[in-house]
Amino acid sequence: MMSLEQRVLEQLSQKTKPRGSLNRIDALALQMAIAQQCEHPVADKAVVLVFAADHGISQCGVSAYPREVTAQMVANIAQGGACVCTFATAVGAQVLVYDVGVDAASFPPPVIDKKIARGTARLDRQAAMTEQQCVEAIGVGQQALQDVRAQGAQVVAIGEMGIGNTTSASALSMALLQESVDVLVGPGTGVAGDALMHKKSLIMRALSRVDPTGDAREYLRELGGFEIAAMVGVCLQAVESRCPVIVDGFIATAAALCAVCIHPEVRQQLIFGHRSAEPGHDRLLSALHAQPILDLHMRLGEGSGAVLALPIVRAACTMLRDMATFASAHVTDKQ
Amino acid sequence: MMSLEQRVLEQLSQKTKPRGSLNRIDALALQMAIAQQCEHPVADKAVVLVFAADHGISQCGVSAYPREVTAQMVANIAQGGACVCTFATAVGAQVLVYDVGVDAASFPPPVIDKKIARGTARLDRQAAMTEQQCVEAIGVGQQALQDVRAQGAQVVAIGEMGIGNTTSASALSMALLQESVDVLVGPGTGVAGDALMHKKSLIMRALSRVDPTGDAREYLRELGGFEIAAMVGVCLQAVESRCPVIVDGFIATAAALCAVCIHPEVRQQLIFGHRSAEPGHDRLLSALHAQPILDLHMRLGEGSGAVLALPIVRAACTMLRDMATFASAHVTDKQ
Repeated sequence: MMSLEQRVLEQLSQKTKPRGSLNRIDALALQMAIAQQCEHPVADKAVVLVFAADHGISQCGVSAYPREVTAQMVANIAQGGACVCTFATAVGAQVLVYDVGVDAASFPPPVIDKKIARGTARLDRQAAMTEQQCVEAIGVGQQALQDVRAQGAQVVAIGEMGIGNTTSASALSMALLQESVDVLVGPGTGVAGDALMHKKSLIMRALSRVDPTGDAREYLRELGGFEIAAMVGVCLQAVESRCPVIVDGFIATAAALCAVCIHPEVRQQLIFGHRSAEPGHDRLLSALHAQPILDLHMRLGEGSGAVLALPIVRAACTMLRDMATFASAHVTDKQ
Repeated sequence: MMSLEQRVLEQLSQKTKPRGSLNRIDALALQMAIAQQCEHPVADKAVVLVFAADHGISQCGVSAYPREVTAQMVANIAQGGACVCTFATAVGAQVLVYDVGVDAASFPPPVIDKKIARGTARLDRQAAMTEQQCVEAIGVGQQALQDVRAQGAQVVAIGEMGIGNTTSASALSMALLQESVDVLVGPGTGVAGDALMHKKSLIMRALSRVDPTGDAREYLRELGGFEIAAMVGVCLQAVESRCPVIVDGFIATAAALCAVCIHPEVRQQLIFGHRSAEPGHDRLLSALHAQPILDLHMRLGEGSGAVLALPIVRAACTMLRDMATFASAHVTDKQ
């Protein structure tokens, strides 16, 4: 009795192509099969889950944009004007945007109201979330994946919106990897010079507050954000829901790393959409042994890099399902 | 009065995203605008043009597959079983396959019969094509682009099928670039050891026959193939047809390079779909100052890498057309 992996590899070896000539596409097809636990994985129906929240630290000048941009961009996503919406239109995916903690009054539909608070606390001074808030935010992500799966989604992409959230993601990543500030803290939306130094010093202050012998959940509560915790929740739910998750850039990858630290079996459900231009992303990807699909020097967030990778994931599935074999197409195999 | 380039750059600078955060996607949107000579380029209707032909040199053991595989794979493409067909289904593109010189009786539709001869001559001994044949093969490509453009195609991808054609593409590239055999000759479908040495020696013999002060058209006739010449024809037609051409891997890029050597203004019409695992591809890309969209270590041909890049090209166009501006979405710009 062959394992699922062996059966898929056997199928791939019979396809009408020189052995190994599809390389990463073969690997993606295999990963999709394992993630969905079936020989013919499908990625036709895709949903982009965008989680939005504010950060206490965004009042400290860590971003090139003011705090109110989070709320403005949530409205922009809801109206279809944001980058991720245009990409989703181009590739055929649905965008759902969740307010997990934006510092604004509640939004009308189609924004999904899961507001926990109007932003986290300042992580340089205290835990960003209470225990209760962190559990709730993770639960938002878990429930979101269950809901879209029940509605027929075969694959999801995860992304975020939250002014100040590279600060939170960097701090969380430093704690998870015990890595230095210079490797994991970068410009985000575009801070440099003194502002970047200030961002680093706030992060160092936050790290000095946190017990370095803590676990991933504790680091998430201390240093994360509501949208980051929600993405952790999606990843944690992915195994049970047999759902592949396409992870976006730096912030989404920090969430993915946190989820893998909590439950290592999450890793096989995760596909990394792109390599971000944010310098710390490389370190996160290597910690996850991840080779992202795209490398287009993007650093926009919102799930924009993940949704661009979706057609490649789809193509891998279609190839596995529809491509002829040497026998079926009467093609002579290698001499 | 602003130029088209200035107008597009102005549009891009107003979109709701940190400046520069879309990097290669912004560049693609601009290139598409210039290639189509309009502010809002479109890549919805896409056609993959696959040109197939045999090579005299394929009787000399330069490929891991026997010569008859060209004809078998043309039938496989026509029946929808080849890799490029499954990828085209996944991304929403039409595949057209042209017999420009397969060593077989003519194929029934949907194969488009443009057979010039049943394969080229052996390039190690004589010119691969007569002058007449070469002109005719270029014309097949030019006409193909005119035809699909008239039928509404907004972008095309080019690819090929032809056992032995990395030998031809390597020889042509060596002549065009005055570059050495070790840089430009690789395993193709998978030859190694003595077989690779043999492939190199046949190519060296072919090059020794050819006047090194010749021009690109002459090299094409001496060393090319019917399918390569047809792809040259598509590229040459692209300026007049205002059509962007997504170029596949090593062999298609050799054709693109030849076309650019003939008419340098062709370059702005060309988008490079992926970086092939065939080692010589890097040298061709750098000669063309090209950064391909994808790098998935593929080496299958048929246009497979080009068609996978299509959704990214589409997304760039959709972004340019649909993404909100800071003003239209009431988003606060950078502090």
